[in-house]
Amino acid sequence: MSLQSKVSLPVIKRLPKYYRYISEMKQSGAVKVSSSELAHMMGTTASQVRQDFNCFGGFGQQGIGYHVDVLLSEISKLLFSEKKLNTILIGTGRLGHAISGYLTAEAKGYHLLASFDKNPTQIGTELCGAPVLDIADLASFCKEHKPQVAVLCIPKTSAKSLAPTLVSLGIEGFWNFSHYDLSVDYENVTVENVHLGDSLMSLGYRVRNK
Amino acid sequence: MSLQSKVSLPVIKRLPKYYRYISEMKQSGAVKVSSSELAHMMGTTASQVRQDFNCFGGFGQQGIGYHVDVLLSEISKLLFSEKKLNTILIGTGRLGHAISGYLTAEAKGYHLLASFDKNPTQIGTELCGAPVLDIADLASFCKEHKPQVAVLCIPKTSAKSLAPTLVSLGIEGFWNFSHYDLSVDYENVTVENVHLGDSLMSLGYRVRNK
Repeated sequence: MSLQSKVSLPVIKRLPKYYRYISEMKQSGAVKVSSSELAHMMGTTASQVRQDFNCFGGFGQQGIGYHVDVLLSEISKLLFSEKKLNTILIGTGRLGHAISGYLTAEAKGYHLLASFDKNPTQIGTELCGAPVLDIADLASFCKEHKPQVAVLCIPKTSAKSLAPTLVSLGIEGFWNFSHYDLSVDYENVTVENVHLGDSLMSLGYRVRNK
Repeated sequence: MSLQSKVSLPVIKRLPKYYRYISEMKQSGAVKVSSSELAHMMGTTASQVRQDFNCFGGFGQQGIGYHVDVLLSEISKLLFSEKKLNTILIGTGRLGHAISGYLTAEAKGYHLLASFDKNPTQIGTELCGAPVLDIADLASFCKEHKPQVAVLCIPKTSAKSLAPTLVSLGIEGFWNFSHYDLSVDYENVTVENVHLGDSLMSLGYRVRNK
C-alpha cells in the first residue's frame, strides 16, 4: 500500500502505544474518544494525534471524536495481519528461552517455526512447542520453510558472522538482542534492536547521579 | 557532582554505546582514537562526540586524539560504580527468570538481593543465587536491606498497584518491563522502560509494509 509505505518511523513506533491505550479504553467501556483525550494519554498534542491518524486515512470524521471500536479495529489491522509472520529464533540460552516464551505466549502475529543452536545439549529438544535444531541445518530449513523474521539471542560476533547467511536466506525482519547493528551493513532489512545492557548502564548512571 | 547532574538524557543514553565501541577498540589493540573515528562508529559527528565528552570534563586534550585506555577508564567510572546497586526483582515468571539471569551474569554494577513473587510454587526457591521471597514480605525486606533498584517483570496492573509501595520503600530506579509508565506518576524516580511488545508490533508492521 503506497499510503502506508510513506509513514515515518516515529509514527509507526507510536502505533503500539495507541493500540495499548485504546485497548484499555475499550476494556473500561469507553465508546468515543477525542484527539485531545488521546493526546493526554500519549503525552503528545491533539494535532499530533490527528496527524498520526491521517497517515492511515484518518480513522473517522474530524470534530466529532473517534469511535473506540473503529480505532481499535483499524489499528489492530495495521499491527497484526491474519497471516502470522513465520519466525525462527537463534540462540537458545537463558535469554533465548525467555524471549521464545514471550514470542509464543504474549505476542500476536508471529509463529515460531524453530529455534537454532550449536550446543549439542540443546539440539533435539523443544522450545515453546517448536524444535531446537542444529545451526548447521539453518540453510536447508530456511529454504524449505521460508521464515521471514529471525530473533537474534546470540552475542555480537555470532550475530555478525551469521547475518549474511540469514539475509541471503530471505530473512526480512530481525528482532535483535545482540549488539551487532545489522542495519548498518544491510540497509534493506528491517531491524528492531533491544539493547538490554545499554538500558541497564544508563539506569545505573542516572540513579547514581541524581 | 554538579557537572554530571546537568548532563542531558540523550548524552547519558549514548554513554553505553561509547563504552561498547571503545571496549572493542581496546580489545583490537587500538591506542588512540580521534573524535571523527568515534563519530563514524557512533553514526554521529565529531563535533557531537567532543560536545558529549565535554559534559564529563573532556577526557583528553583536543586536537591530538583520545587515549583509548583513558576513555575506557573514565567512561567505565561513569557507568559502573565500585559500589554495586542493591537490586530486587519482582515477578519470577519466564521473563523474570531470563532477566535475572541477564542481570547477574552479564550486567555490571548490580547486585541482586532477592526476587519476589506471589506464586507459592516460586516462593522459597532460588533464582540466580538469590532467594525468591513472598511479595507479602517486601516491606520488611526493603526496610532491612534498602535496595535502590527494582526490576519489574510483572503485568501493568500489578506494577501500578505495587509502585507506591516500592517508591515509599526507597526504590530510586526502576528497570521496567511492564507497560505501566511509572515516570508519569512518580517524577522523582529514574525509570528505564523496556517495551518488548511494542518493539515486536513495530517490527511486524514494518516487515509487512515494506
